[in-house]
Amino acid sequence: MASEHITTELSEGILTITLNRPEKLNAFTTQMGQEIGAALDRADRDDDVRVVIFTGAGRGYCAGADISDGGSVGAGSGMERKGLPPGGIGQRLFESHKPLIAAIHGAAVGVGVTMTLPMDFRICAQDTKFGLVFTRRGLVPEAGSAWFLPRIVGLPKALEWVYAGRTVNAEDARAAGLVSEVVPPDQLLPRARAIAREIAENTAPVATVLTRQLMWRASAAPHPEGALRVDSALNLALAQTADVKEGFTAFREKRLPRFPGRASQDLPALYPWW
Amino acid sequence: MASEHITTELSEGILTITLNRPEKLNAFTTQMGQEIGAALDRADRDDDVRVVIFTGAGRGYCAGADISDGGSVGAGSGMERKGLPPGGIGQRLFESHKPLIAAIHGAAVGVGVTMTLPMDFRICAQDTKFGLVFTRRGLVPEAGSAWFLPRIVGLPKALEWVYAGRTVNAEDARAAGLVSEVVPPDQLLPRARAIAREIAENTAPVATVLTRQLMWRASAAPHPEGALRVDSALNLALAQTADVKEGFTAFREKRLPRFPGRASQDLPALYPWW
Amino acid sequence: MASEHITTELSEGILTITLNRPEKLNAFTTQMGQEIGAALDRADRDDDVRVVIFTGAGRGYCAGADISDGGSVGAGSGMERKGLPPGGIGQRLFESHKPLIAAIHGAAVGVGVTMTLPMDFRICAQDTKFGLVFTRRGLVPEAGSAWFLPRIVGLPKALEWVYAGRTVNAEDARAAGLVSEVVPPDQLLPRARAIAREIAENTAPVATVLTRQLMWRASAAPHPEGALRVDSALNLALAQTADVKEGFTAFREKRLPRFPGRASQDLPALYPWW
Repeated sequence: MASEHITTELSEGILTITLNRPEKLNAFTTQMGQEIGAALDRADRDDDVRVVIFTGAGRGYCAGADISDGGSVGAGSGMERKGLPPGGIGQRLFESHKPLIAAIHGAAVGVGVTMTLPMDFRICAQDTKFGLVFTRRGLVPEAGSAWFLPRIVGLPKALEWVYAGRTVNAEDARAAGLVSEVVPPDQLLPRARAIAREIAENTAPVATVLTRQLMWRASAAPHPEGALRVDSALNLALAQTADVKEGFTAFREKRLPRFPGRASQDLPALYPWW
Repeated sequence: MASEHITTELSEGILTITLNRPEKLNAFTTQMGQEIGAALDRADRDDDVRVVIFTGAGRGYCAGADISDGGSVGAGSGMERKGLPPGGIGQRLFESHKPLIAAIHGAAVGVGVTMTLPMDFRICAQDTKFGLVFTRRGLVPEAGSAWFLPRIVGLPKALEWVYAGRTVNAEDARAAGLVSEVVPPDQLLPRARAIAREIAENTAPVATVLTRQLMWRASAAPHPEGALRVDSALNLALAQTADVKEGFTAFREKRLPRFPGRASQDLPALYPWW
Repeated sequence: MASEHITTELSEGILTITLNRPEKLNAFTTQMGQEIGAALDRADRDDDVRVVIFTGAGRGYCAGADISDGGSVGAGSGMERKGLPPGGIGQRLFESHKPLIAAIHGAAVGVGVTMTLPMDFRICAQDTKFGLVFTRRGLVPEAGSAWFLPRIVGLPKALEWVYAGRTVNAEDARAAGLVSEVVPPDQLLPRARAIAREIAENTAPVATVLTRQLMWRASAAPHPEGALRVDSALNLALAQTADVKEGFTAFREKRLPRFPGRASQDLPALYPWW
């Protein structure tokens, strides 16, 4: 299945998904959403993919929904969602098995911001402008961002930005925690790859997949009981695996681990637990 | 209905509610709570009110519950709640349709702090003292502050302050995120009005009202599903409105928008969705 | 009942629990978990205990689960939990009546970190290394840390650390909020005691116990309603007590309070409310 609005490239265990409509500042389309969904479906099943990086071709990351597209306004929320779950691109990213890194530059407006919020890491170039402009267009924040944004920058800063429909520069984004790092443009992808490699080289694929859902789902629960029950059961199951044996052996031998477990088929029976 | 313990003033789309018992450092009374409730009821229905500012007359913001008042201790939690919902002043502020800004100076003790927590913005003068003194008086933090305070300053800082019954100065409050800005006393209301004006001049009234409840309610949900479903449905409904047309047109024409939608009657049918 | 893997000492209302297997860097055992549980059971009932400090004997705080112990891997989650609730040591600490302070130095690895997360304060010496190494050993974060860690350092920083299985130094821990202070090693226990004394000298024992559960439980609820209802009812009950009378009297007389209420028997009838 050829992609038209994105390109994908796999190397060193890292899948790079590039939003690829540079002549439109990578404006988001229904088709782009579906192509991202399909690429994540393949990534979930592919043991050669440990981490996924999102980036944009050309002058910016994504200028928002393409208003010439049928499903334009609110597209990020899944108005047109063939191949996507009911919650659209936001839900699909949330459900990713593999950790997701957003490498952002230039314009990141509307869904160009909100699609990065269910990702696990966000770094950006110095020239980035994050446009949280919904209320200035008569709309509400989309793609689940009322849930995601306060988890990332805290509720007061999220309210400050969304009420005013603010456009936020790279340094303010870093100060608030929207991005963890601001780098020169030519360092954007190298830094994203370094973050990805630290995970790919040091950690167990099965444990990483379990940890992603455990962290996102448990962290918002009203009570720690669920996390306590689930992490105990998961570690009880994992304790018998060759992965744990290799993890402790590699640590003792002061070398990088070579984990045999495959995320495509070695997840414990209780996954998914929700 | 004349107010005795507060005054109200409306200009430029901004309603200013002044706690007005300066001879008592604006100590909170049952009557003051009811008058605030009534003022917010009117503000909810009044399309001329876009944003509400709270401030105190005289030397301080509010010295806490008036212990000579019948409903003194725990008044903020609604022991005496004629005209207020079951959760008292805390719940009434939470349910406000319009964004709320606290402009705080001098003493802000007990309910003088906790009533500002369900507001959306808090700024203060350099001389402000926030008294989270509950455990030093034999009481627990009131007015829902066990829910609100950790959302604003994070759980560890909230625990540090409330366990010790700490009084916090302006700079420590800013460092922790309890206030977004500390300003000279004569800049307090001008800054509060500037924050209000940015919202009033640039954003759609209908979208602002929807966004307030969406942000507060979705941000604490155990799962993003609710936000994803609600924001998608809201934007689908809004996409057809004259507000969205005006929002995009004004943006293209590089001018301030003039949104026709009225919050008093043009909220989508699915509001309230909770 | 003699303890073998911990020691306890009580003075000035402060119970100090010392992890005491210094020859093993205080590696966590099933027995250590049970002894901590028993010590907390006694502290809950003992009105002479106002605050509990945890520290480690010798060169470090706790090097993780003792892998020569039967219940080694995942021990923190309660695989072997005689004398502990179903959620193991994490749940037992969460349910503590008295505020808990972790005074950490040297190695704090695996359960050596996660056991400190349900505590209320964490301070550390300059030489501390926090090992969140789970995914490097093929495991998931244990002892409810998927719930606790994001509440303390925020979700983005929690994801950054646990995905990569990172070991975090004292200064990075402070910058992220994992600890509130970094001190020279010889100041570690004196600072922990100063934090404990501020609570013990100034606040009401009954209010402190109520406040601990109120803060932890309400802060993660999906809606403020529960906190509003509970804090209102608690303060209504407390308002009639000698503690509140003494709190206001001591404040007016500018002296330290002497609260008569005992946490062992004077909790309001609605406790526990959950």
